[in-house]
Amino acid sequence: MARVSGAQANSKALIALGVAIRARRKSIGLSQEAVANSAGLDRSHMGKIERGERNVTLLNIMRIAGVLNTSASALLADAKL
Amino acid sequence: MARVSGAQANSKALIALGVAIRARRKSIGLSQEAVANSAGLDRSHMGKIERGERNVTLLNIMRIAGVLNTSASALLADAKL
Repeated sequence: MARVSGAQANSKALIALGVAIRARRKSIGLSQEAVANSAGLDRSHMGKIERGERNVTLLNIMRIAGVLNTSASALLADAKL
Repeated sequence: MARVSGAQANSKALIALGVAIRARRKSIGLSQEAVANSAGLDRSHMGKIERGERNVTLLNIMRIAGVLNTSASALLADAKL
């Protein structure tokens, strides 16, 4: 079972962000590994973020957004958060 | 000295978010304590978030945004993140 910090009911938000990150990543043709490496994140952590299994921090959202050539607020807006 | 998870260089982002949260909170006339209580956060943690001294998670950004009657993406956009 996925381990999520915070209320389980809110994990929909984590899943929505993960879906938005994955969609953006695929739209610019990057692999999960490439994004993880460029963002300085462990690849398995990156996978968990994309599956909504981790409560991601602002600084990591910003690192990922930077690699994906977008902004943190735009990524969250894509996820309707 | 403030303890910040992640690269120190990125703490400007945490400060910008804290400034945006504080501005929004004051604009709707809520005390820091009221927001902390409604969001289910420790008041001292809330103070550290407003001062940019903590790397805040997405779920906590969403809890705070909800209490402030806004969205997480709008709060980040206010902070130009």
